[in-house]
Amino acid sequence: MSGRILSSVRGPLVLAALFVAACQSTNGTEAPVTAPAPPRPTPDELTARLVDDVDALSLAALHDAVATEPHPAGSPGDEATIEWLARTFEELGLEVEVQYFWALLAFPEHAELELVSPQRLRLPLMEDALPEDPSSSHPRLDPGWNAYSASAEVTGEVVYANYGTLEDFAELERLGIDCRGKIVLARYGGNFRGYKVEYAEAAGAAGLVIFTDPRDSGWGQGLSWPEGGFANGSSIQRGTVLTLPYYGDPLTPGREATEDAERIDVSAAGLPTIPVQPIGWDAARSIMEHMAGPEAPQAWQGGLPFRYRLTGGPHVHVRLAVQQSRRIARTANVVATLRGSEAPEQCVVIGSHHDAWTFGAADPCAGLICVLEAARVWSRARDQGVTPRRSIVFACWGAEEYGIIGSVEWIESRLARLEESGVAYVNLDMAAMGLEVNASASPSLQSVLSRAANAVVQPDDANGASALEAWLTRAPGPHADGMPAFGDLGGGSDHAGFVVHAGLPSAALSAGGARGVSYHTAYDDLAWYRRVVGDDYDSARLVTAITLAATTALADEALVPLDPARFGREALRHLETLTTRGRALGLFADADDSGAIDPVFAKLAQRLTQHGERVERLTSRLANQSAALDDETRLAINALLVRWERAWLDDAGLPGRPWFKSLYAAADETSGYAAWMLPALRWAIEEQSNDLLVEQLARYDAVLDRLEANADALARLTE
Amino acid sequence: MSGRILSSVRGPLVLAALFVAACQSTNGTEAPVTAPAPPRPTPDELTARLVDDVDALSLAALHDAVATEPHPAGSPGDEATIEWLARTFEELGLEVEVQYFWALLAFPEHAELELVSPQRLRLPLMEDALPEDPSSSHPRLDPGWNAYSASAEVTGEVVYANYGTLEDFAELERLGIDCRGKIVLARYGGNFRGYKVEYAEAAGAAGLVIFTDPRDSGWGQGLSWPEGGFANGSSIQRGTVLTLPYYGDPLTPGREATEDAERIDVSAAGLPTIPVQPIGWDAARSIMEHMAGPEAPQAWQGGLPFRYRLTGGPHVHVRLAVQQSRRIARTANVVATLRGSEAPEQCVVIGSHHDAWTFGAADPCAGLICVLEAARVWSRARDQGVTPRRSIVFACWGAEEYGIIGSVEWIESRLARLEESGVAYVNLDMAAMGLEVNASASPSLQSVLSRAANAVVQPDDANGASALEAWLTRAPGPHADGMPAFGDLGGGSDHAGFVVHAGLPSAALSAGGARGVSYHTAYDDLAWYRRVVGDDYDSARLVTAITLAATTALADEALVPLDPARFGREALRHLETLTTRGRALGLFADADDSGAIDPVFAKLAQRLTQHGERVERLTSRLANQSAALDDETRLAINALLVRWERAWLDDAGLPGRPWFKSLYAAADETSGYAAWMLPALRWAIEEQSNDLLVEQLARYDAVLDRLEANADALARLTE
Repeated sequence: MSGRILSSVRGPLVLAALFVAACQSTNGTEAPVTAPAPPRPTPDELTARLVDDVDALSLAALHDAVATEPHPAGSPGDEATIEWLARTFEELGLEVEVQYFWALLAFPEHAELELVSPQRLRLPLMEDALPEDPSSSHPRLDPGWNAYSASAEVTGEVVYANYGTLEDFAELERLGIDCRGKIVLARYGGNFRGYKVEYAEAAGAAGLVIFTDPRDSGWGQGLSWPEGGFANGSSIQRGTVLTLPYYGDPLTPGREATEDAERIDVSAAGLPTIPVQPIGWDAARSIMEHMAGPEAPQAWQGGLPFRYRLTGGPHVHVRLAVQQSRRIARTANVVATLRGSEAPEQCVVIGSHHDAWTFGAADPCAGLICVLEAARVWSRARDQGVTPRRSIVFACWGAEEYGIIGSVEWIESRLARLEESGVAYVNLDMAAMGLEVNASASPSLQSVLSRAANAVVQPDDANGASALEAWLTRAPGPHADGMPAFGDLGGGSDHAGFVVHAGLPSAALSAGGARGVSYHTAYDDLAWYRRVVGDDYDSARLVTAITLAATTALADEALVPLDPARFGREALRHLETLTTRGRALGLFADADDSGAIDPVFAKLAQRLTQHGERVERLTSRLANQSAALDDETRLAINALLVRWERAWLDDAGLPGRPWFKSLYAAADETSGYAAWMLPALRWAIEEQSNDLLVEQLARYDAVLDRLEANADALARLTE
Repeated sequence: MSGRILSSVRGPLVLAALFVAACQSTNGTEAPVTAPAPPRPTPDELTARLVDDVDALSLAALHDAVATEPHPAGSPGDEATIEWLARTFEELGLEVEVQYFWALLAFPEHAELELVSPQRLRLPLMEDALPEDPSSSHPRLDPGWNAYSASAEVTGEVVYANYGTLEDFAELERLGIDCRGKIVLARYGGNFRGYKVEYAEAAGAAGLVIFTDPRDSGWGQGLSWPEGGFANGSSIQRGTVLTLPYYGDPLTPGREATEDAERIDVSAAGLPTIPVQPIGWDAARSIMEHMAGPEAPQAWQGGLPFRYRLTGGPHVHVRLAVQQSRRIARTANVVATLRGSEAPEQCVVIGSHHDAWTFGAADPCAGLICVLEAARVWSRARDQGVTPRRSIVFACWGAEEYGIIGSVEWIESRLARLEESGVAYVNLDMAAMGLEVNASASPSLQSVLSRAANAVVQPDDANGASALEAWLTRAPGPHADGMPAFGDLGGGSDHAGFVVHAGLPSAALSAGGARGVSYHTAYDDLAWYRRVVGDDYDSARLVTAITLAATTALADEALVPLDPARFGREALRHLETLTTRGRALGLFADADDSGAIDPVFAKLAQRLTQHGERVERLTSRLANQSAALDDETRLAINALLVRWERAWLDDAGLPGRPWFKSLYAAADETSGYAAWMLPALRWAIEEQSNDLLVEQLARYDAVLDRLEANADALARLTE
């Protein structure tokens, strides 16, 4: 089964890719190896060799190893996973760091949800055990729970709040529905679940029950597990409900959560104050079918077989009791390094978290196994005498599910070093979920990712097209330059700290399209994955292959293939989005409608354009000169390229969120689902203040000054 | 309750309305009345007086009289309704014609639907009797049935065909689903139910079961009856499944269905050959929840709480037995005439059918009572000495539900007279269903209907806006001339024969917006209507008032207020639609994309434009001259205006549908839902033949020749 489809590696595509020419004509310094060194392969030869070594049986075995037991952070399964990961990396001969950290976690102790009236009925808080899916009766599975729920028992009437977004609660208020003292029912979707809690609390709710709606995740989408891949009536989406203005351990913002770190008081951390419980739709139905209040707005109707109501009315009462302990617990990141030969301090990090709410066959292990397989393949290449110029770090993060904790603790423990010499971060959380390649990425990484996808064959294409060609067909890019449409990175997984706090060029790479969702349920196990995504591991091979191609380029090309010019175009696109948003809010009422970008951004747009054009000229010149560069100059250029993107960092951070240092990208403030690009400007627009906008624009002038200083330095180095 | 809201009648609005000026300054010939004639009111004064007389209590009493018993065509209730209508009109002192006709009707005898496997279960074919709705237990209610179903008993596996459209059956074939010998389940919606039968037969189905989906008509839309107005799980939509290339009695196409008329053989009439049965979603669920075949396409998913499947598989069998008798039965139109004083042969017809599948409180009586109330109000005005210049005909059609039979028999019995002097037809079937005025109308009637709506106050507008203003806000028109958007008339109700066979200027006027649907169910009764639409009869008063304003203008203005110029603009709009459709079919592949209208239509478009501009000049001149016109000229002009629209008739009819004589409008050929405008051209486009298109274009040249001859005549009369 191994290598057949992906073994045909394609030649380089000249995209905008000045670096291809640069690297192919350069012979870098040889790595010092103990055995006599074979001739150094070119990066393309190396990519072909690495991709050819990716192995479906290996991926399946890795999957067996990491996704057979439940392993949420701080559990016995977590401890076992950490040990196994460390041992596995050690056996590969990598430098292994087990970075333990002590974070405030939550542990489920007891929960009850009961319909009290019109009749008494205990509602199920656990998935059905299915004979077709033996893991679903695993004795160490936790019932459905939301980490960091308050511990309390409440009884009250019920209110339905649709997705529980800011807008949904505003609509309830407009309709005169009082949530005070009520138990709010909200369905999953529309925002990050933590915001459902935040807004329910703000509306005075006594408790919150979050359910999976069959229209969104069940029969409205496809056949249910175990016949199909979608949720069944017992499926419960677990998950954290933290919404803090920083990621990482709730008690050590900005600091590594060592055992004896200085900590803020838990009461100051802004944790949820009401009990929260996730349920499946069978349980939701048992409550909602009794609701008799006014009908909900048309857009709030879900898939249950009755009209949804805003309130249950006085005859429907529900009792919710949640007991969790919040305590500081130890878990760890397991990080393995393949040291680079030429600039070992410069590191390309690929990572995925390892903790999982249940088995994690999809989340995170569909990505974790790609990290592990990439480590195996690179280690074998090293054994055969190939060492990359720069270091490659294979990172398995702990406690991501609780609040992106492990990766942030790692970043916080070495922020200055990362800012100085971190090359890039590629996140593979839950990456192999189908054959449709997709990525969100910093502008500087878009070219190298496109090239990497072009180096790999699309498994399900009869004509041997590349993964890039298939990707372009699905998602043509906005700039007509042979690159697909990339998403914008904000929060959501372990790339978040790299992007918003450390300012590293980052990407979240994945391949999706499998028809089903087991997300955070007891069914996120190997039986589900192998039936729904496939037991051929084509998806994981595809993702691993692209990852290998990208790491080869990033770690081994003579010039670091980050594209510093691309910020010009991409930031202009974001200014258009900001203009649209500002107009929608009536902020640019008297603006000239003819231009796509509002005049308030004119100077910034001009500077971005000029900067982008200048850097394009400089990088073109660099490409022409690359063969003739002496090593000292080349290494100086690389050091500059690696640091380049930190020009977007501002130590003051975003207004109200000082931990968010990047002025280029952030998570949004009200849903957790969207990325805010040029976030200080976006914040001022959301505040609907032109004065604030002008104030924040000054900070972007400073960013441009720093970018121009980079360009000056590059100009000097390429003179 | 009477008259308060509508009593304030608004002054004339100068729309494009050249006729307003014309009529106000003209004193027509006085009608010969027995008593000394009071001073003749102007049409605006008359409108005000008539509108003021519309009475909610009268409407409610009329509703009680016509919607208390089930009265499908050919039933005892039908007979009683006919007698009551005739007596009522006679009591108003109108000339009453009870036109009996003998049509091929269908009568339900017995039906059974049974789930045979995986378990035996008889499925309900009748609505639940509800204590909140006493009529629902009426002993003379028929079970749910589809008229003209074949009589047969079949047992088979099941196939789900979504809405059973042409495209849906094509998709089934593409997916390799064999319907032969199967019982097809299709949901209501997407097309006229008769086409579901036609396509199921064509696919080889053994039988067809049509169900109401809760997503389309139940909880997907709102609360169910009796709490809300929408369908409940037992609601069954009855209805005919005829799809013939003509309307009227199936056995006497083109001829009046007198008792001894020549008839075609019933076997030649193309009636359905498979049994067909409508059901509610409770019954549908009992079958569909057992289906285990491949899942249906995403767009086919309805509201039942499971994933919809394409097939039941071999373990699901259903038995369907339908017994109906098809026989020639007598029913009648009841038609009352208020003779005009000046040109009694010229008639303005307002009508609604009177037959109903059950009680018909909404369909048709929400419109029928408006016809009756208008007759009452006009009769009272006549009693007070006001007689319109032209005749007004109040028509209550029989057997519309079976295939638009009564109105077509009436038309066929006097086609030459109607073509010579029929002024207009206004259809009010099921018209009063809310306060949102809406109309489909021939171009020549759009101006007079806009003026009529402007003469009436919108009941729910706090600022006393006119019904026209509210209408314009909801549906601004395409021509920026102060008129709202009008729908295009094709088939669907009793206007059909007037439009497509007799070529009369026609309109379907209604006011909608009530939240609910009882369409063709046992719940279409007074309890439902008064709870869902309202017991204040504001809707019926609004519709009646606009109808009175329109009939006043059409029957009593000195110059007939038909606008012959408007066909120019409207037909150009249809040419744009045809261009879009032709391009979608790849017919105009090498066409110049810059123009909205394809070059193949260039000559016709030019002639239409020139004709429209010429007629506008002529009617402007007419408006300026109107005060000075002698009666002879005026009457000659009126006779010309009345006949004008017959220029669009072509005795050869449409290709394959010779009974469809109008080259301006027709029902479509594949769904029964849409209107085909410029239908001979549309037909050629659907045939995807440029040759046929060019051939048909020649017929439109002839239409333009006839229209130009009209214009020549008008020019001579206004010289």
